[in-house]
Amino acid sequence: MKQEGIDACLISSNTNIIYLSGLLYSGYLYLNCNGDVIHFVKRPNNLQLSDPILFIRKPEEIPNLLKEKNQPIGETIALEEDEMSYTDRIRVSKIFPDKTIKNCSPIIRVARAIKTEYELELFRIAAQKQSDAIREFPKLFRPGMTDNEFAIEMEYEIRKRGSIGVVRVFGESMEIFMGSVLTGENAATPSAFDFALGGAGLNPTIPVGHNNTPLNEGQTVMVDICGNFNGYHSDQTRVFSVGKTSQKALYAHQVSIEILNTIKELGKEGVACCELYEKAIEIVKQHNLTDCFMGATQKASFIGHGVGLVLNELPILTAKNKSPLTAGMTIAIEPKFIIDKIGAVGNEDTFAVRKNQAMEQLTNAPEEIIIL
Amino acid sequence: MKQEGIDACLISSNTNIIYLSGLLYSGYLYLNCNGDVIHFVKRPNNLQLSDPILFIRKPEEIPNLLKEKNQPIGETIALEEDEMSYTDRIRVSKIFPDKTIKNCSPIIRVARAIKTEYELELFRIAAQKQSDAIREFPKLFRPGMTDNEFAIEMEYEIRKRGSIGVVRVFGESMEIFMGSVLTGENAATPSAFDFALGGAGLNPTIPVGHNNTPLNEGQTVMVDICGNFNGYHSDQTRVFSVGKTSQKALYAHQVSIEILNTIKELGKEGVACCELYEKAIEIVKQHNLTDCFMGATQKASFIGHGVGLVLNELPILTAKNKSPLTAGMTIAIEPKFIIDKIGAVGNEDTFAVRKNQAMEQLTNAPEEIIIL
Repeated sequence: MKQEGIDACLISSNTNIIYLSGLLYSGYLYLNCNGDVIHFVKRPNNLQLSDPILFIRKPEEIPNLLKEKNQPIGETIALEEDEMSYTDRIRVSKIFPDKTIKNCSPIIRVARAIKTEYELELFRIAAQKQSDAIREFPKLFRPGMTDNEFAIEMEYEIRKRGSIGVVRVFGESMEIFMGSVLTGENAATPSAFDFALGGAGLNPTIPVGHNNTPLNEGQTVMVDICGNFNGYHSDQTRVFSVGKTSQKALYAHQVSIEILNTIKELGKEGVACCELYEKAIEIVKQHNLTDCFMGATQKASFIGHGVGLVLNELPILTAKNKSPLTAGMTIAIEPKFIIDKIGAVGNEDTFAVRKNQAMEQLTNAPEEIIIL
Repeated sequence: MKQEGIDACLISSNTNIIYLSGLLYSGYLYLNCNGDVIHFVKRPNNLQLSDPILFIRKPEEIPNLLKEKNQPIGETIALEEDEMSYTDRIRVSKIFPDKTIKNCSPIIRVARAIKTEYELELFRIAAQKQSDAIREFPKLFRPGMTDNEFAIEMEYEIRKRGSIGVVRVFGESMEIFMGSVLTGENAATPSAFDFALGGAGLNPTIPVGHNNTPLNEGQTVMVDICGNFNGYHSDQTRVFSVGKTSQKALYAHQVSIEILNTIKELGKEGVACCELYEKAIEIVKQHNLTDCFMGATQKASFIGHGVGLVLNELPILTAKNKSPLTAGMTIAIEPKFIIDKIGAVGNEDTFAVRKNQAMEQLTNAPEEIIIL
């Protein structure tokens, strides 16, 4: 905050309130650059936290309450301009007519990318629970199922194992239910959303993932059901096949595993994000699989992304991102291929970046394509 | 738009793109006040619609493309300032440096409150499917279950019956998974969210609804699991009890039914929203149940709300809302009571407002408390 010339932040987005307080309330979290925190809470009216709490009805009460608390307000107040609606940003900025208003969304996003040991422990728990659930998924398959019927069984299984269900995504235009299951031609269907792969979805109002395609002999079934057990999103994809699938599908899946193993070793602190992207592209080219990598007619421009309190955090592993990896970053890497008429293949694993060694792999369901 | 002096709207929120195009894409929907529509689409890259589609990579391409299409740009462009982030609103407004920028969120919100016959038909379908699911819910109960275990079974059931799972809520600070199940003391727990009732939730990151409370003999189980089968949210709450529950719980539940029946008759076109609120309060007072109505220590200030492409639309039935009901509005009415240590009681039904007759009740699961 000091580097950016910010004297205090006033935080109101759900995700950043969770990040800074450990729980979610409706209101405003005041964070002074000296470290003082005051929670201005609208709801719930019985909240208890170790830092001071002041209950408010509207944000206009905040300046007087800060004065009463002898909390000095500096010259520059930062708001989350990437998360707040324009209307709310204008309203709150009017509360501080003499102050300079800055945008604190980018610095919090950067801070959130690097997890503390406490956050990493929550990740390890979530990733293990998700991995254990995925091990059970093949047992839930019944011949004649559609992708949606299989998805419902897997959602049910992971909820019974403690998933809280909610999948949070950053960005106004991204939405998903619990995840996606892709098979057959639907795997190549472009989506409205900027996920690695698409799918038409169950309804035009939520156009991503499974779309009631029958799970036919020879097809692959890519399962990307999110593991949110404690607020942190473990992101892991595994592939099954209905009976034996094609040689090309099996081959491309092995290439995905090769990419993941290579990037796991390469991804130490200090390595640029684009190096991981370039390495993946290089391996894909060696195997002549460029055409079907990361989509068919519509391709994703990344091969991985940070994960955390939302599914898509920093960093994003693209060709252009020269920023270095930092120890504590948690990254989902998802080299995926479209196999014409058969479906999609390729795993996704979540890793934690470390200082002088390979990334720590948090997700651990079996890597091979499991025959249903 | 003409009344508000708006020459064109540029729409980018998911919900309003669905409202105006029938499906969801990533991009900008240009709506001229003469009725012309152009879809500026980022994703998916294979979209087909009856109106013209222009594929773009970024919004800065829009003005030149409008010129190429001989589409006159008036003096005033409206953006969704209540939905767009501050950062996006500033970016898009810079594309039109010579234009006056207005906020079209309020007029679209008002328009969306009144459903077309096509939308009402989608509502009827969703409400019937949700009602049929609720009829099955009591069969899913097993002695010794927690509220969450029961919730998981009901989520599974409604997904198998065609629910697409997603529950959309308006407002940056409101979130929910598929709905809530409230029992025992948890029913009185204040929530961070402005729903009718609260509950601690499964995790501090999503503090609403069931929280692993055992379903004990004598307690009520309030089930408010959303019915989103086609984008439109059927909102319906029903109450079960584990064995027989208390006389007070049964009595208060009958008062809720009385309120719903009274408001159903009262809610014709032209009646002010606050009249429905006042009628509910009047009935509650007659029965001396004010203390436990709409929460315990934290109370909701409304007794119902519009529903549609999001769970909470206009109108809101509060003491202050003098705006009149209009035929075609769809409203969920939820007179609910907290019964100390036992849980919550009271139904919620979704209705459509009509011109000269009682509201059309869309939801129809059995009204009485069903003994599990």
